[in-house]
Amino acid sequence: MEIIRIPRILQDTCFKQRMHGRSIGFVPTMGALHEGHLSLIKRAASENDITVVSIFVNPMQFGPSEDLASYPRDVENDILKIRELKADILFLPDNSLMYAEGFSTSIQVDGLSERLCGHFRPGHFRGVATVVAKLLNLTSPTRAYFGQKDFQQTVVIKRMVRDLNIGAEIVVCPTIREADGLAMSSRNRYLAAEERTTAATLYKALSRASQQVVAGEPMTRIREQLHAMLSAEPKITAIDYASVFHPETLQELQETGQLKEVLIAVAVRIGKTRLIDNLIVNR
Amino acid sequence: MEIIRIPRILQDTCFKQRMHGRSIGFVPTMGALHEGHLSLIKRAASENDITVVSIFVNPMQFGPSEDLASYPRDVENDILKIRELKADILFLPDNSLMYAEGFSTSIQVDGLSERLCGHFRPGHFRGVATVVAKLLNLTSPTRAYFGQKDFQQTVVIKRMVRDLNIGAEIVVCPTIREADGLAMSSRNRYLAAEERTTAATLYKALSRASQQVVAGEPMTRIREQLHAMLSAEPKITAIDYASVFHPETLQELQETGQLKEVLIAVAVRIGKTRLIDNLIVNR
Repeated sequence: MEIIRIPRILQDTCFKQRMHGRSIGFVPTMGALHEGHLSLIKRAASENDITVVSIFVNPMQFGPSEDLASYPRDVENDILKIRELKADILFLPDNSLMYAEGFSTSIQVDGLSERLCGHFRPGHFRGVATVVAKLLNLTSPTRAYFGQKDFQQTVVIKRMVRDLNIGAEIVVCPTIREADGLAMSSRNRYLAAEERTTAATLYKALSRASQQVVAGEPMTRIREQLHAMLSAEPKITAIDYASVFHPETLQELQETGQLKEVLIAVAVRIGKTRLIDNLIVNR
Repeated sequence: MEIIRIPRILQDTCFKQRMHGRSIGFVPTMGALHEGHLSLIKRAASENDITVVSIFVNPMQFGPSEDLASYPRDVENDILKIRELKADILFLPDNSLMYAEGFSTSIQVDGLSERLCGHFRPGHFRGVATVVAKLLNLTSPTRAYFGQKDFQQTVVIKRMVRDLNIGAEIVVCPTIREADGLAMSSRNRYLAAEERTTAATLYKALSRASQQVVAGEPMTRIREQLHAMLSAEPKITAIDYASVFHPETLQELQETGQLKEVLIAVAVRIGKTRLIDNLIVNR
């Protein structure tokens, strides 16, 4: 596995691979890799000639009061894991090379970026869209892989890719969960023992809501039930949102109408840790 | 010459050319082609294996009170001119294919977009940056060619290309002028006879200012002289700006200091027509 730290070298290397007719599967990450990330890398490796993984904790997508400084970093172990999966290239850039002096460009996806997490993390999806566009330009992938756990991120990125005519296919892969249902996330490392137990409630609440959606229960009752289950946990200190949404527009649903699929999504705070999770439900 | 109207077909066609090892020179235009455009196409053809020209009057870069509806359109003659220069591909898309339903993405280059013309045309450079990114993604050019007449546009695009790691070289080509010095522009077609005569004053004023810069005269005097020459013309109904600027930051200069090059730039209104011009002066 080749480790590349210089954006221009990555770009030349990847473009040459494409010019030789090889497909590239790209997995962008912020490191602290868990089974969710590894499933993306495996999928990329199975569908493409060349697998490129990036580790970059992108400062542009963190708010001033968020966890940029404390975000888990574990590059040595990450490298071992990626090497084991036989990825071809690992991109490990410095901040100063990704955001050169005078950096002043940003990509905004209106509407989709302001809903759900966007309301609580202003500027977050602008930072995500911008860095993902940069990484796609550097790796010119045939396909890029993202986890469904960050569902809103995948919707924003798919819209950006379509609107800007970026020539990569965005592949969304299933959320990988712990035995008790907790969605894998690098931020789970923040959780103390009791908080970790509480965190399993997110998936329980989503699963219950999913059954209610399938049973055709009214949206108001589903929302109330979601909030009731989450509020019952003393370790859950805030519910940013917990509701049923249109999976494409991300607008909150008052009724499901003709929709074949709906998104049930929650974001809560457990102590200082913000956790998100979601299910897509076929009706 | 192949005329392509479907973005996806353009993208596949161009990418295949790059995969065959051929270089692509790309010239984006809004049509109503003049000698300035043709010089870009000639330059592109001389430096690349494949030459791609686009004609697209981009609604996103026009303000609500601007000249989108009346912008000169002359596609039939444009096609003849491009064919004569032996361009390989002409891209002629529809609005609805460039801006599909639900389009919601934009690219902003902060700072540079707000100065000079940006102050008088809010949102203009956001529209320019967005459509140029789209066109670069569709054509994957080795080099893209722009005229110096739209100097601020070239600065904004170069910054965007650098910041977003777009893998194309931006080539800025000299302004082509009429015999009396007027910079070629599709908007010159708007000018009535007397207005056309007046329009030559822009280049005269720039040339005079250029001599003053070389002679080391103070900025205040140069600015005053520029404004005096333009104000003396009764057909010039407004001076949006006329001054000396830093050629990279586009900030107005109070003194030239250590700068090797400065930008002298003007924007005026002659009747309903807005004209811009500039000179880069080596000191």
